[in-house]
Amino acid sequence: MSGIWVQLAQEKKRKTEALIPKEWILPNPPPTDQLDVSHVPDQCGLLTKKEIEITNSPVGVLLTNLASQTWSSVEVTIAFSKRAIIAHQLTNCLTEIFIDRALKRAAWLDDQLKSTGKTVGPLHGLPLSLKDQINVHGIESTMGYTAWIGRVAQRNSALAEILESQGAVFYVKTNVPQTLMWVETFNFIFGRTANPFNRSLTSGGSTGGEGALVALKGSPLGVGSDIGGSIRVPCAFNGLYGLRPSYNRVPYAGCVNSLEGEEAIVSVLGPMTTSVEGVREFMKSVISGQPWNKDPTALRKKWDEDAYKLAEHGNGAQLCFGIIWDDGLFHPHPPVLRALETVKNALLAKGHKVIDWEPYKHGDLCMNAHSIYGAVGEDDFLADTVPTGEPVIRTMELRDDEPVKWPAKKLNVEAPALGPLVSADTKLTAYELWQVHKQRRQLRAEYLDHWQATASKTGTGRPVDAIIAPVAPYAAPPHGQNNIATYTVVWNNLDYPAFVLPVTRVSSELDSKRPPPVFFSNLDKQLYDFYEPEIFANAPVSLQVVGRTQNDEAVIGMAELVDQAVNK
Amino acid sequence: MSGIWVQLAQEKKRKTEALIPKEWILPNPPPTDQLDVSHVPDQCGLLTKKEIEITNSPVGVLLTNLASQTWSSVEVTIAFSKRAIIAHQLTNCLTEIFIDRALKRAAWLDDQLKSTGKTVGPLHGLPLSLKDQINVHGIESTMGYTAWIGRVAQRNSALAEILESQGAVFYVKTNVPQTLMWVETFNFIFGRTANPFNRSLTSGGSTGGEGALVALKGSPLGVGSDIGGSIRVPCAFNGLYGLRPSYNRVPYAGCVNSLEGEEAIVSVLGPMTTSVEGVREFMKSVISGQPWNKDPTALRKKWDEDAYKLAEHGNGAQLCFGIIWDDGLFHPHPPVLRALETVKNALLAKGHKVIDWEPYKHGDLCMNAHSIYGAVGEDDFLADTVPTGEPVIRTMELRDDEPVKWPAKKLNVEAPALGPLVSADTKLTAYELWQVHKQRRQLRAEYLDHWQATASKTGTGRPVDAIIAPVAPYAAPPHGQNNIATYTVVWNNLDYPAFVLPVTRVSSELDSKRPPPVFFSNLDKQLYDFYEPEIFANAPVSLQVVGRTQNDEAVIGMAELVDQAVNK
Repeated sequence: MSGIWVQLAQEKKRKTEALIPKEWILPNPPPTDQLDVSHVPDQCGLLTKKEIEITNSPVGVLLTNLASQTWSSVEVTIAFSKRAIIAHQLTNCLTEIFIDRALKRAAWLDDQLKSTGKTVGPLHGLPLSLKDQINVHGIESTMGYTAWIGRVAQRNSALAEILESQGAVFYVKTNVPQTLMWVETFNFIFGRTANPFNRSLTSGGSTGGEGALVALKGSPLGVGSDIGGSIRVPCAFNGLYGLRPSYNRVPYAGCVNSLEGEEAIVSVLGPMTTSVEGVREFMKSVISGQPWNKDPTALRKKWDEDAYKLAEHGNGAQLCFGIIWDDGLFHPHPPVLRALETVKNALLAKGHKVIDWEPYKHGDLCMNAHSIYGAVGEDDFLADTVPTGEPVIRTMELRDDEPVKWPAKKLNVEAPALGPLVSADTKLTAYELWQVHKQRRQLRAEYLDHWQATASKTGTGRPVDAIIAPVAPYAAPPHGQNNIATYTVVWNNLDYPAFVLPVTRVSSELDSKRPPPVFFSNLDKQLYDFYEPEIFANAPVSLQVVGRTQNDEAVIGMAELVDQAVNK
Repeated sequence: MSGIWVQLAQEKKRKTEALIPKEWILPNPPPTDQLDVSHVPDQCGLLTKKEIEITNSPVGVLLTNLASQTWSSVEVTIAFSKRAIIAHQLTNCLTEIFIDRALKRAAWLDDQLKSTGKTVGPLHGLPLSLKDQINVHGIESTMGYTAWIGRVAQRNSALAEILESQGAVFYVKTNVPQTLMWVETFNFIFGRTANPFNRSLTSGGSTGGEGALVALKGSPLGVGSDIGGSIRVPCAFNGLYGLRPSYNRVPYAGCVNSLEGEEAIVSVLGPMTTSVEGVREFMKSVISGQPWNKDPTALRKKWDEDAYKLAEHGNGAQLCFGIIWDDGLFHPHPPVLRALETVKNALLAKGHKVIDWEPYKHGDLCMNAHSIYGAVGEDDFLADTVPTGEPVIRTMELRDDEPVKWPAKKLNVEAPALGPLVSADTKLTAYELWQVHKQRRQLRAEYLDHWQATASKTGTGRPVDAIIAPVAPYAAPPHGQNNIATYTVVWNNLDYPAFVLPVTRVSSELDSKRPPPVFFSNLDKQLYDFYEPEIFANAPVSLQVVGRTQNDEAVIGMAELVDQAVNK
């Protein structure tokens, strides 16, 4: 590959790397073929004991200790900055680094608290990392496009403005795939982000930089975006807690994005963190910032504490969950099935009910979503790549010319390839697009009826309270092999809020191959053949708790119950 | 004109007319050239004294007397049915008539109340009329398309289901223009609906049948739809109270529509009635029916009583209104200016503040909306007309072959013609459409900033509380001359809830021609030249109270204050 874009990419990458403070460079970085690097930050010797304590604390503990001045924002920000730089050296997760600025802001917040006795807001002093596309005044947003290098945001995005007004400290931005329309993370400027639990595996995407960073505790709380799984897949593959909120619950105004003008399946921003509480505090803080006064598309809907306390779900006393064992398209691998079994048993043990959920037309819902994503073919991507001659990336497989290289896993059988979310030959006219929208509206109406009708099966007098579902049919697969997004896309199309939480890790002992099911398709058989526990060694396994449109509070409340049953 | 569609239209029209009970046919119908027929129902002798009392009662009084069994639902339904049939003979406003069925339902409701002592719901026993497109189980929805004749709804729309569960009684459906994309009312099956205050004038559209019907008190409460002014224009032209709610506040699922699949500027359903209270009761009743359980696109947002009581607007003690004297595109006619002056003075007298509102890029917002409406050209309409050979209507001017004929007004100067909301040669690709959506998002963001910035001018510490604006630059114009929708379309594009309320009537004494302003365009000059008080004689003049997205409750609360200042 050659061309102006190559130099632009190399120069930008060099500039980012040059921002790494020399004293934070790992003296003895693990060799590339050391796959599990999850323990390196705690053991590398760069972090003090206190910094290790700080960075291993979840959001709730951090906020309490910041508000009580037990820890200053400066020391918390230094701790996470240092650890973010370590995480970057281990997984290549950062795009923008602006620690100096963060420390000034942290010092100001410390002064404010000291002088007034009051916190600036509920997130006072908390370092917060952001997916590259979230505009922060004075910081570049390239989204991995060489043509976007040098595009410094002239204004905070609505979300950045609210988070800052609530007391957050921004210090880094994180890696994404070119076009954002992949569930892995690779672009020509910053390269590929690896999975910290096994660097031969993908960190997922499109918020893969955030996934690796938060998993290594280089950030207590990150913000991602999700139009087909881009928050949930990296959460699942990195063992994090995260939420795909309902459309327009978190303000998107002022961010850069792909497929702008696509207004049917709405891309959403949401949190990625290490506890349910972190998700809840993020959502409460953002919503209490009245996003509707900063973003014309943001829902005017206050945080509903009654909904969070499950007022419409029998106050959480006895819930009925519906489990998706498979989506009718792809049979999940053994680790995912074991996670479902684990959750089912834990919920039954707590006195809840669990029934099987019949996936209703998930194939149609996914095809419909693909028609929408692909309605302009590659025109949108070409507009951002042609100016510098940068090629549009058409596979996430490992390449020889990557700026940062990770080990390839030797595969006996290729993973099934559904191809990218968007391809070149799917362009529609406006009339054709409206027919797709019309079909979509019909599918959504049918799904709602389908859900309402479960009231006759639950025995609670209510329809199923929430669905428990896989996030993907597998744990994080090797780089370039993550081509199935049906388990996430379906909820984007239906606009159901979906909470991801970790359940277990892949275990060669517990997760040996199971007997073949009746396959749905050749691709499904390929997926079955592809499974060997060794390929996925050490990878986190997570599930989704899925609720009803704009009922984000209840989904958080129910995820908390599930988490307590499974993880506490 | 000839073809199968002509016979189909005539046959369907005959069937509708045949449903008129013979004993309710006006013995001495006023001659067609009697323009003002607004007093005919009270004076024609067909209604008893009690029926006159009932039908002249606003929704609040009706609900109270129904709930207390002072009036039975049967007698109220008979009274409104009779008056609806009279209204139809005067203005040609009905499409479907199903009074027998309504009376059975009313009798059942009466029984329920008698036997249980409880009302079925907050709308217990209230007759409610519906725009033709709102599906009611067992009733046709033709929308004036000959190809749709015989399409009997197999299921209630979500709204019909909720309204029935709240106790409403459906008895008639009302006329619309072919395609719905006109702000007048004419189609080849049912013909044209006239304005009851002056039958040479349009009743407006697209909910023009409802406008004439409710104005003549043939219905206490009707439901319309609005994607560019279709609730507000007929409310304004017929002196009614009505609301264009925010997108998805009132469920639309299960209705038929034009431009299905257009998901950017969302068509909304809303009430048309004779009091603010009627609007409020409708909205509260619908929202308390939890539309989100019946329509996947309905907002999950409960009725917010605090918002209605203006908690975020200083509890309504001193509001600051922004007045739009013109939208920068068209100077309103003298009656509209007088209405604005009247409201301004009334608000000042009540101690409120009034400042001028600077219309921000209304032209761009309207052009943008037109690009969206027109994105599929006539393809959508052709799909519904080609099967029977019915022509697509391209002007609302009076035609020789109308099934029902109204007098033409002699015009010295033609009204300015912007043309229909949709024309044939504006087709876009999906990519082009997304660029229009992108521009729209930018315009909406700028308008929000513009509004927020008024906080520095109001002296209340808040941004302007609500905007007072014309609904059209004129009162109801003669048939075929209503071609300017900029004053309504702009709020559809911004998704601002807009409440219409009557202020005055055109008066030849008070509304003489004013000196010419500096014209914005040739069309604006044409509009000025077009004005003669005699043309618009007796027409109602109304204004809009416009608030913020999804803040429908506050808009209703503020409209109530304005109404009390102006009309009480």
